Parts: sequence; structure tokens; C-alpha cells
Amino acid sequence: MEPYELTSEAAGALIRSGELSPVELIDSVLARIQATEPRVMAFSHLTAEQARDAAIAAEQELASGRYRGPLHGLPLAVKDLYDTAGVPTTASSAVREGNVPSSDAAVVRRLLDAGMIMVGKTFTHEFAYGSFTPPTRNPWDGDHIPGGSSGGSAAAVAAGSCVVALGTDTAGSIRMPASFCGVVGLKPTYGRASKRGVTPLAWSLDHVGPMARNTRDVALVMDAIAGHDPLDSGSVDAPVPDHAAGLASGVDGLRVGVPTNYFFEHVADDVEQAVRAAIVTLQGLGAEVREVVVPHADVLMAAEWGIMLPEASAYHQQSLRDNGDLYGADVRALLEAGELVLATDYIRAQRVRAVIREAWRGMFSDIDVLVTPTVPFAAPRAGEAEVNWGDGTIEAVHDATIRLTSPANVTGVPALTIPVGFSRAGLPLGMQIHGRPFAEATVLRVGYAYEVARGAHAWPTLAD
Amino acid sequence: MEPYELTSEAAGALIRSGELSPVELIDSVLARIQATEPRVMAFSHLTAEQARDAAIAAEQELASGRYRGPLHGLPLAVKDLYDTAGVPTTASSAVREGNVPSSDAAVVRRLLDAGMIMVGKTFTHEFAYGSFTPPTRNPWDGDHIPGGSSGGSAAAVAAGSCVVALGTDTAGSIRMPASFCGVVGLKPTYGRASKRGVTPLAWSLDHVGPMARNTRDVALVMDAIAGHDPLDSGSVDAPVPDHAAGLASGVDGLRVGVPTNYFFEHVADDVEQAVRAAIVTLQGLGAEVREVVVPHADVLMAAEWGIMLPEASAYHQQSLRDNGDLYGADVRALLEAGELVLATDYIRAQRVRAVIREAWRGMFSDIDVLVTPTVPFAAPRAGEAEVNWGDGTIEAVHDATIRLTSPANVTGVPALTIPVGFSRAGLPLGMQIHGRPFAEATVLRVGYAYEVARGAHAWPTLAD
Repeated sequence: MEPYELTSEAAGALIRSGELSPVELIDSVLARIQATEPRVMAFSHLTAEQARDAAIAAEQELASGRYRGPLHGLPLAVKDLYDTAGVPTTASSAVREGNVPSSDAAVVRRLLDAGMIMVGKTFTHEFAYGSFTPPTRNPWDGDHIPGGSSGGSAAAVAAGSCVVALGTDTAGSIRMPASFCGVVGLKPTYGRASKRGVTPLAWSLDHVGPMARNTRDVALVMDAIAGHDPLDSGSVDAPVPDHAAGLASGVDGLRVGVPTNYFFEHVADDVEQAVRAAIVTLQGLGAEVREVVVPHADVLMAAEWGIMLPEASAYHQQSLRDNGDLYGADVRALLEAGELVLATDYIRAQRVRAVIREAWRGMFSDIDVLVTPTVPFAAPRAGEAEVNWGDGTIEAVHDATIRLTSPANVTGVPALTIPVGFSRAGLPLGMQIHGRPFAEATVLRVGYAYEVARGAHAWPTLAD
Repeated sequence: MEPYELTSEAAGALIRSGELSPVELIDSVLARIQATEPRVMAFSHLTAEQARDAAIAAEQELASGRYRGPLHGLPLAVKDLYDTAGVPTTASSAVREGNVPSSDAAVVRRLLDAGMIMVGKTFTHEFAYGSFTPPTRNPWDGDHIPGGSSGGSAAAVAAGSCVVALGTDTAGSIRMPASFCGVVGLKPTYGRASKRGVTPLAWSLDHVGPMARNTRDVALVMDAIAGHDPLDSGSVDAPVPDHAAGLASGVDGLRVGVPTNYFFEHVADDVEQAVRAAIVTLQGLGAEVREVVVPHADVLMAAEWGIMLPEASAYHQQSLRDNGDLYGADVRALLEAGELVLATDYIRAQRVRAVIREAWRGMFSDIDVLVTPTVPFAAPRAGEAEVNWGDGTIEAVHDATIRLTSPANVTGVPALTIPVGFSRAGLPLGMQIHGRPFAEATVLRVGYAYEVARGAHAWPTLAD
């Protein structure tokens, strides 16, 4: 087994015991990047030299007895939406070409302080406003999209080109590519982790969060990045639990909600089967399965679009005037559409959202987690524009990819995606676990229990 | 002296000692209402019979030894924007004709539970969206407007037709009519008192609050109505101090900010002189006067209008479709204008507001209170549409009346108005005292110190 194949947990333990040097690990990861990048194209910018220097420094630090914790010396990939000091940060847009920030985004800083080593910046769909993330390809099959907007981060984790990657999520941009690429991704509770230094898409729906190979790696990152930031107006000052500590305490007696509406409608057979089989697995571990009706399902996507469109357009308005021709056609069309939304429509969308959020609070009084598919299908082929559901419904891929993830953005609740098997075509499928606000530890515990039961803790080897 | 002339403090003390019966007090107030209503027209609906029954019940309760506190048995007038169980509540609009709620607004309920007795509902400018409140007249001079939108409440307090009245304030609707009518009015911090059961105008700018003859009466009401309401999504769960307890502790050493910009620009001479004289009075009491620059003054009104217009239109949108012809022409025009605002403009107004709020927090690190005029002039004549500032500037009365009060709505800070003298024409003038969020006790303390120094604690007798 090569060092790049190790999870955070395994690599961290070996680094702590001195059996693995950070330099060895980073070199292995950099070699893996060299091997996979020609076909995956996950990275917009590599920081190989700085990473090697940092690995040497970490090695010396560890040798001198200074141990920073379980992330010390581990390789990190950062979505190109996060500011990184001295490293190009362009939101994968020509609009930001040449931009080199002078300071790190808050959560990047936290991870570097925890000892992580950044190996590069990953492609985002331009300004995080889309679901296919050119030029990145799905590591499982290059003819398929990696998803987006955190497509580069998902592909990098799946390809073994980093152990942990940072993503952002406004309508599913962490969870959907994680599902398409067969990795774990967490959108935390709104306000749980700081968004300072991250280019916004739609501020009231935006979240930052981690992507990794398993739930323990995600928990370790949450331990480092969760917490209040007074300089981020969306940040919430709430107690931070130890996310990794209770991971293995099981799901016995936990009430798992399974929706009878919305989340299994217009979902591919193989997706539904994989998720329902995973639910049976959880039931076998002692979880109590309860059917629930998801409230106000008919207005969830109206709220998402009614808020995302104008918030994104407000942020880009001046830039679109000045540099309209530098935007990609798809993003520009969305930004122009958002400028036509009336304030009364936006205000009503925000009020509908308050009603939905309140109703979800009620739903969670009967259940501990809500389990659903993450995306209605496996990763589509590049260029595929529509899905035909066979009952007369034809849905835009763009709409379908975010249909099951957006509810957690509208409500702000934490939602984790974990791999639960493969499609008929051999592409990964994801299951989504929603929890109450600030109950990240609970959704991670459910994910971990499933992983243990499935023996799915190691990195899934890709065909090279 | 007739009982109706007593302040809460005086009447409450006499009721407690048994020297004054609630029945005697209510009868005196009802007689006063009969005498003044033909010329003041403050009440949209009187509840004389219920008030008398309640006074008899209060008398019996007190005789049996059950004393509810300092508001027990005192007469209350309620702006017709508040729901009142079994009592017509129309927001002074034909749109709501015949509406009789089945329950009380939260703060009305709190005051009734504290033993207050409602004598009637007072006129509001239709749906709280205006500043002249027909048909109410200014008790000091019937040719002048009482201000609005809480014009009925201000006029009722000034006329001696109640001891305390409730108002609402979205751009100055408590403070401006209080200033015009020579009474005290407090807009508390956003979220300090529950808005449940009160018809909204613009939810993110709306506040409920008390109007009375002096600051102690206002403090007593705040003690009863301040506090968290989980059923009002705008309500904040913050500790509630005893507002009446520290009132008399003086202003020695208190840092009083006096703005060098905005608040004294385009202000009538007599207003400026009265306010500056009041500041000298505070200085004589030991307050330290500091000049301050009000940040982002140039965008304060843009933020107010950019938020108020579309929020009001969103609330009324369906009703305007169904019953457009039942709205007054002035309110209808504003509601139709608000429907044209783009979402991007509203979102930018909210973002500007966040910047302003943050800057005001910084301003308040150097001062304890900010003292300004409440309105740029005394109550205008009914029908007066414009004010000519003599320097080439002509300003709409509608804009000018809310120009100095709106900043506290945009920022959410508490703001108190107290009478500080009279205009050349003999109409009352007000001074506004702003404080830090949730520092209502401090602004009331400043107001009280001024009142004591001026000997202005009694009800100012009006010519009958």
C-alpha cells in the first residue's frame, strides 16, 4: 500500500508513531497527483514545492517533539473559491485571473495551524455556480462529470491526490460531487464554520465544509474548523463538541427518519435500492426506522432558487457590468436572470424559508436523523442536459442534481453524504444523512456505523 | 388636580395606598376622553364599558389584597395595529373593516396581566404607512398634524385620555408623533419586545414600544413588556434589566455623543436651539459631551427606503390585488412603488445596513448615548407637503419627518424621545437619545435626569 492510499486516521497514527514521515507522505501524494492529473484534472494550481518545504518543516517539528494533533503533516486540497495567501485564487473564472490573496480564508488558516499541508487548489465550477466543473473529470469514468461546484475537490479525494479537501455548498456543491465521486462530504450547519475569505455565491445559503474518504477524516477536520468567528457575520456562537470522540458509539435506538415523499420521487432504481439497503443495514445495527412526511416539499426548490438567484446577482452585479464577457455563458445567464427577480419575490422566498425551517424543527422532534438519497442518479455523462423519468417527466440535469441536496441549504441543517454502493454502470452512489442544527456529531456517528458495518473504511481503489 | 392628570407613578402610588380607586381613575379618564375626543379624535374605538367593568374588578382584586404591581388599575390606549381580543382591530384601514381578533397581541396581554385597563384603540396612519394619521389632530393645535403613524396614541397621551399608550415604529412612528405631541416615546432595541399579534409594516424594521408622559412611566411599561417570545421569530433572548430601578442614578461621567454631521443638518433653528440647550443641561449634570461623526450617514435613508418599500409590498401584495380600491391613495402608491424594487437592490440595502450597524457599534465604543433632534421641525400644519430650507433645498414633509428617526430603525438601537421645549409657534419639540443595543435603561436614565433638572415631570397642561 502506498502512503497516498492511507486515510487521515491511518496516516496520522503512523506519523505520530514516527513510522511515516510527512515528507514520505507528501512525496507519495505529489507522485500520485502527477500520475492522475492528466486524466482527472482536479487541480487549478499545484503548490508542490511549498508542500515539500512544509513537509520538511513538519518533519523537523515532529522530531523536536512538537505534535500539533491528528492532522499534523497530512495533505490538503483547497477549492479555488477559498483565499490562500500567496497562492492564485480565481474561483476558476477569467474574471479573477491573476488574483493572489494576501491572507488565508479562516478555515484554511485553521487547518494549516493544525499542521495540514496544502498540495494545491482545486477547480470549482466558475464562481461555484454550476454542477459540472470543467475541466475536471470523474475519476471513476472520464466520460462522466465529477459534479460540482466542488468537482475538483471531490475528484482529488477520489483519485487519492489528497487526504482531505475543502468544498463549499450552496445547493449541494459539496455533497453532489462527493456522491458522484464516491467520497464522503459534509455540509455543516449554517454558521458552524467560518466563511471569511471564501468568495460568496449566495450568502444566506452558502456553507464551507470538508470532503474526505471516510467519516472519521471528516470528523477530524470538523474538530479543527468548527467554531465562532466574530469577523464572519453569518457565524454562530454555539458550543463545539468533539466530533471524533463519539463516532463509534453506534446507532442503537437512534430514530432514523425515512421520507415517504419528495426524496424518493424521480430517483433512479439503483439509487433507491442502494439507499434502502443502507437503511436496512442501519436497522440491523439497532436503529429505529420511522416514516416521515417532509413538510412543505412543494416549495423547497422555489425557496432555493428564489434566494440563490438574486443573492448571486447582487454580489456579481458591478463585476458583470464591468467584465460581463469574461464570465462563462452558463454562469452569465444565471446572473442575468437573477437581476430580474423582484424584491417582493425574494422577501416571500425568505419568509417561506422561515416557515419551512420551523416545520423541519418540528419534523426533527420525532426523529434524530433524516436519511435520503444524495442525488437522484449516478454521475451523468459530460454534456448530458436532460433526464427522462419515463413517466412523461423530462427534467434538466442542472435542476435534478441539486433537487435532493438543496433542502439542507434552505433549512441550514447539517447533511452528510457517504458512499453506499454503485450504479449498474459501476459509478458510485451516495446516501444523505440530515441532522438537527449543530448535530454534526450525530450524522457522522450514523455514517461511521454504516461504514464499519460495510467494511468500507479504506480508500476505494480506482482502476488506474 | 383631576385623576386623569396623574402620571403612572403618582396614580399607581395612590392606588396602592388605597387613596385612589381604579374606578375613580378610569371614570376620570373616560370623562376626559368625552371632553377631548370631539377635537382630538385620537380613538378609533372606545372600550368604555369593558374598562369600567375591569376597573371594578381591579378595585375588588386590590381590596382582596392581590396587588399586581405598579401598573395595576392604570388606563391604557392601544394603537389599532395591535390585535385585541373581542375588540375591533382594523389598522385604520377599510381593508380590515369588521375584523375582530380572538386573541391579544403578546405585549397587550402582558400589560393586561400587569393589571392595566384598556380604554380604547387609537388611530394609526393606515397600516402604519404614513405620518399624519387622519382623522386625529394635534392636541396642542388642531390645525397641525399629530404625526404618525402612532398619531392616535401620541395625541391620546398628550390630551390626558390615557396614562400609557402603545405605538409601533418602523421609521419613527413612535418617536415622531411623540415629539409632535410633546410626550415621551421609546423605540426599544430590535427584538426586545414581542411583535406577535401586531400587523407588520416592514418586518425587519418594525418595533413595538410605549408612549407616556414621562420616562418613569415608559420604564414601568418596559419592565412589563421586555423579554423573549419564542413565537416571534424577530424576538431576541437576552437578559432583561429592571428599567425603573436605576432611573435616578444620574448622568455623572456618562459620555454623551453629539453628532457633527447629519442630525443637525436641515433642522429648524428652534429645534436645534432647544436640543443644544438640553445638552448643556445634561453637561451641567456631569455628563461628558463628545463630538462624534455619524458613520455612513449618506446611505442611511437609502437603506431605510430600500428595505421598507419592498417588505411592506411583499406583505400587502395579495391583499392589494384583491382589495386595491379599499386602500387610501397615499398608501396604495407606496405599496405599488415597492413592487417595482428589484431583489438585488433590496439585498444590497440589507448588506449596506449590516455595514452601517457594524459602524454604529464602533461609534458606541466611544460614547454611551447619542443625542440628536427627534424631528427637524415642530408638527406641520395639516396638508403641508413641503419644507423649504431656504438654501435651495425643498424637502417633502413625508421624507423630512422620518429623516432623523430612521437611523435607529436601520441599526436597531434603542431610541427615546423626550420633550425639550416649544417652537416659536408654541408647539412641542423633542430630543432623541440613542443607546447601545439593549441599553434601554441607560437612555431612560438620561431622559429622567433631564426631566428632573427641568422640573418637567408632570403632565403639561393643555389649553382646553
